[in-house]
Amino acid sequence: MAEQTERRDCAAPIGVFDSGVGGLTVAREIMRNLPNERIVYFGDTARVPYGSKSRETILRYSRQIIRFLRTEQVKAIVIACNTASALALDEVEKELDIPIIGVIKSGAHVAAASTVNKKVGVIGTESTIHSGMYDQLIRAEDPKITVYGKACPLFVPLVEEGWLKDPVTETVARRYLQELLDEGIDSLILGCTHYPLLRSLIGEIAGPDVRLVNPAYETARELERLLAKHGILNTQAKPPGNEPYKFYVSDAADKFKRFANSILPYDIETTQKINIEEY
Amino acid sequence: MAEQTERRDCAAPIGVFDSGVGGLTVAREIMRNLPNERIVYFGDTARVPYGSKSRETILRYSRQIIRFLRTEQVKAIVIACNTASALALDEVEKELDIPIIGVIKSGAHVAAASTVNKKVGVIGTESTIHSGMYDQLIRAEDPKITVYGKACPLFVPLVEEGWLKDPVTETVARRYLQELLDEGIDSLILGCTHYPLLRSLIGEIAGPDVRLVNPAYETARELERLLAKHGILNTQAKPPGNEPYKFYVSDAADKFKRFANSILPYDIETTQKINIEEY
Repeated sequence: MAEQTERRDCAAPIGVFDSGVGGLTVAREIMRNLPNERIVYFGDTARVPYGSKSRETILRYSRQIIRFLRTEQVKAIVIACNTASALALDEVEKELDIPIIGVIKSGAHVAAASTVNKKVGVIGTESTIHSGMYDQLIRAEDPKITVYGKACPLFVPLVEEGWLKDPVTETVARRYLQELLDEGIDSLILGCTHYPLLRSLIGEIAGPDVRLVNPAYETARELERLLAKHGILNTQAKPPGNEPYKFYVSDAADKFKRFANSILPYDIETTQKINIEEY
Repeated sequence: MAEQTERRDCAAPIGVFDSGVGGLTVAREIMRNLPNERIVYFGDTARVPYGSKSRETILRYSRQIIRFLRTEQVKAIVIACNTASALALDEVEKELDIPIIGVIKSGAHVAAASTVNKKVGVIGTESTIHSGMYDQLIRAEDPKITVYGKACPLFVPLVEEGWLKDPVTETVARRYLQELLDEGIDSLILGCTHYPLLRSLIGEIAGPDVRLVNPAYETARELERLLAKHGILNTQAKPPGNEPYKFYVSDAADKFKRFANSILPYDIETTQKINIEEY
């Protein structure tokens, strides 16, 4: 019986959620690094952005989304949203009997472990940088580290325009990164879920002496360790013909589909809109 | 008694509201064109953006804000937000005993009246363009007009960065406007409250044959006609020493103050944060 339960758990999907489309970069890393795992993704496109909302609101939203994801029998949950990771993870973790991780802890941990000169840069949206969420986690691991934050508000719309390799984006990126490079950082956290799509451009500008930390990738790696620890890592390849990835949104499925299809290695056909307020 | 009431009404302020900071361009036009009028501005910075929200939600928000503005004894209300103008104006107008106007009708009306070749361009946020709100109003005035819409999602963050006269902004603007210019438009509506700040740049790119329609300016002019019609236009200069403009926001007053101080001709000191959900 126990064996049967475990087998069912292994085949169950991972729940991934974000305030919008950005968390798809985290889903993509899970697809790449854990190809046996199924995913149920929820993007809260009706209530985006989370960055300007209060802790109470974000906690309420996160609980609603987790209730929805559990109707899909997920075996673990990944919070692919910086704001919800910072404001809701600790609280909802206490309420859950399945593993849950958030995107900022993994990134902060790897940056703290990898910096040699103790100078870490973080780029993100205005609200992420203003909140000091990465700063706090990194300095909790090593108070000797100085964290230099820089808000890059043009990066999200540039990514959403699809101008990933574009002279405009390059000029903007050089301007944003210059002050961090002038500080002599040796590690740079891509602290917004959209930014991994600018990874190669940012890497070229930052140069080989700056290690780029991609929280989306680090989260996928931490998820793998966590699933293994709980004995629910799926070691069996997915059966063919069975759609392994499901996508749900709270509004405007078209824009979501367009963006998803531009970054995922296959076409999303099955995005469904749900009323998240009902959960 | 009637005369006394009228005198009090004339000195009462105009209520102006928007989902955030953008509506300040409308407030600015009222300050310029109606220098005797006092203004109470409300920016719903906690619940921005409105573009992705449902009609019911926008109506509920608009009613809350109007209730708040009325506690300041406003004599008229200007909806300086494209989304709220499109979704809530007709409904709240029926419920009010003071004049109310919205930013999109004035712009649409002037564009419909001014186009000669019946080709009008509209630029705005993705949600404004996608909703077809200008399109609908313009073609209601003259069905022979063809409206060409173009979403310019980078303009708002470029304006908020303060990069108003910048090679990056110029390159982006040329790229956005080219397809409208290729269609041969002779009028172009700046269909987002941030865009008047890019007016001179857009004018240079569009050239002298394209008439720029600034809904912020047209709204201020329509407000003047409306106040005169109701006999509540203030013809007396404001007494010195009495702060004529008040600013309220629902969140993050700092960012609001920074932006306001960058576009208004004087420093805003008195921005207050209120809990709009209580109204």
